[in-house]
Amino acid sequence: MKTWRDERILSLFGIDLPIIQAPMAGVGNAQLAIAVARAGGLGSLPCALLSVDKAREAVTLIRTQTAAPLNLNFFCHAPSPRDEQRLAAWSEIIRPHAVSAGLPLEPTLPAHPGIDTFNESWCAFLENVAPEVVSFHFGLPDAALVARVRAAGAKIVSSATTVAEARWLAANGCDAIIAMGTEAGGHRGTFLPGELDTQAGTLALVPQIVDAVDTPVIAAGGIADGRGLAAALMLGASAVQIGTAYLLADEIALPPIYRHALEQAGDQSTVLTNIFTGRPARAIVNRAVRELGPLSAHAPQFPFAGLALASLRAHAEAAGSDDFTPLWSGQSVSLARALPAAEITRRIAGQALDVLRQQ
Amino acid sequence: MKTWRDERILSLFGIDLPIIQAPMAGVGNAQLAIAVARAGGLGSLPCALLSVDKAREAVTLIRTQTAAPLNLNFFCHAPSPRDEQRLAAWSEIIRPHAVSAGLPLEPTLPAHPGIDTFNESWCAFLENVAPEVVSFHFGLPDAALVARVRAAGAKIVSSATTVAEARWLAANGCDAIIAMGTEAGGHRGTFLPGELDTQAGTLALVPQIVDAVDTPVIAAGGIADGRGLAAALMLGASAVQIGTAYLLADEIALPPIYRHALEQAGDQSTVLTNIFTGRPARAIVNRAVRELGPLSAHAPQFPFAGLALASLRAHAEAAGSDDFTPLWSGQSVSLARALPAAEITRRIAGQALDVLRQQ
Repeated sequence: MKTWRDERILSLFGIDLPIIQAPMAGVGNAQLAIAVARAGGLGSLPCALLSVDKAREAVTLIRTQTAAPLNLNFFCHAPSPRDEQRLAAWSEIIRPHAVSAGLPLEPTLPAHPGIDTFNESWCAFLENVAPEVVSFHFGLPDAALVARVRAAGAKIVSSATTVAEARWLAANGCDAIIAMGTEAGGHRGTFLPGELDTQAGTLALVPQIVDAVDTPVIAAGGIADGRGLAAALMLGASAVQIGTAYLLADEIALPPIYRHALEQAGDQSTVLTNIFTGRPARAIVNRAVRELGPLSAHAPQFPFAGLALASLRAHAEAAGSDDFTPLWSGQSVSLARALPAAEITRRIAGQALDVLRQQ
Repeated sequence: MKTWRDERILSLFGIDLPIIQAPMAGVGNAQLAIAVARAGGLGSLPCALLSVDKAREAVTLIRTQTAAPLNLNFFCHAPSPRDEQRLAAWSEIIRPHAVSAGLPLEPTLPAHPGIDTFNESWCAFLENVAPEVVSFHFGLPDAALVARVRAAGAKIVSSATTVAEARWLAANGCDAIIAMGTEAGGHRGTFLPGELDTQAGTLALVPQIVDAVDTPVIAAGGIADGRGLAAALMLGASAVQIGTAYLLADEIALPPIYRHALEQAGDQSTVLTNIFTGRPARAIVNRAVRELGPLSAHAPQFPFAGLALASLRAHAEAAGSDDFTPLWSGQSVSLARALPAAEITRRIAGQALDVLRQQ
């Protein structure tokens, strides 16, 4: 008897369990990817906030620790020009909140937002390190770059937040599509025009995407235990991508204020907000979200919105406060457990098989 | 071998299939309830827009056609006083849209919104007709009325849109709790304070409610075929409540413009809006939603917001336009099929068993 009936993603990626660890830029690291990969899932390394050198270092470490397949993840947004006027206006909106929080708002803004988009240098890096899987967020890079990634031997994955995006990704060379429901933590993968408030939850989105494309579908959003994995398989997904359930993993050195916020969070704790980067992303509601958002028409374009908050965040964090920290989290945060990542992975898979066999 | 492993809802209500037909005030009728009940699900009659006499007529018809258990559904909101000033201000907001649509906006508003809340008369009616199940929307009526409903022999059900609401319903005498994710069509069942944009999707909400209460849970929102039913069972639900999948049923005489909108709708077609009644409800985006909402701080309190739109809607509909019609729908509308309701019910149950057994 086969353990998992639908083996499309298992064969495509060369993994044992239908679990992809979400990359989680700024949080995920080599240790997490190693642990998940060793447990039989797909380990992912987020590269969007790394330099090429740092990414190479991390990949080298991962490759010495496991021969399992690896996913490298990139943002592929079209970079926006820095709009000084809009940044200054946004700083003025933020100023009274800095004052009322008793914090200084530095007039000097960092020169660079520190979030990279996939480009020539990253592509050359990929050709060198030859990851088995490359996943993109915010669509796909230019066709020429996609062709080079494919020629380097990587399976190509990206996220769809709508059926239209799934069709687009299937037509533009994705080997698998992540169907990202509104429950998901962090940035929505949205890349085609449309209204945020018409996007569907995972339970509605997955079957509609499964019906629309022939490409295997990976369900994401709200899946944090074996019940969620089993449910996703029933909806027609071939695997799941899981982020929030790994946030308390031993391998992640989460700042204590972020960890504390996750431990306190319940089903009503998160919201989609654009104030931290300029793009909608799910985070725990805190002072900044309440006072500036959750969705502000004044937030500068991605990824510049966070620049004006940077000094405020640093001062608040130094004082032990999460008031201005982006506390990325999905809606199933209350299901996350503080355990080694390998155990989290095995528990989710084991519980899924249990509930599937009980029916 | 038992067909359905979890028989808690089947035993509680005395039904064969773990499918509750959503009442759908204004749309659901005796024929639909009869067809679903005969197929083995729980048929529901929505009473919120009926007079006691009309409801008695419908129940009498249902009882002559089937001996199966019946659910009677009521709204139980605390009635708001009619606020003439707010209604007049809302009319002024609507006026330019009437003008640009080339439609007259009648100055005279109907005296009564036509949406009843559960009260003494309805309770006396229940005691007389003795339904097996009574479901409420917007919480529960006063404890004294709840006690009388229970004494009349009915199992009591209500909807929770958060874990806190589920705990409240469990503590206040519900025999089963509907976990209503954000995908669901029509009115959110919300009755405790909280922000709409922090409410969870079905896939995230159901397991968190299952973990929080001992009461059996009925999943609702985004479930429109057997895949959704199977997924809900994996999440720990004992049954599902399905609305949108019945909207195209032969038994419902849907106005052609509403039917047409449903047939054209996809995954991005619906949004939560308060402009039609004053409470947030999921509907297909149309001109009124785009121009007045989707969420307006100026909408008069439930259910008065719709009064000012009534004449505009009537004129538009007479001209064959759905511009001002509330087109209630959930996010899985593209999965709805035009079939007899009994066949819809049997297909959903059959497909669920198929996908469960394939794993």
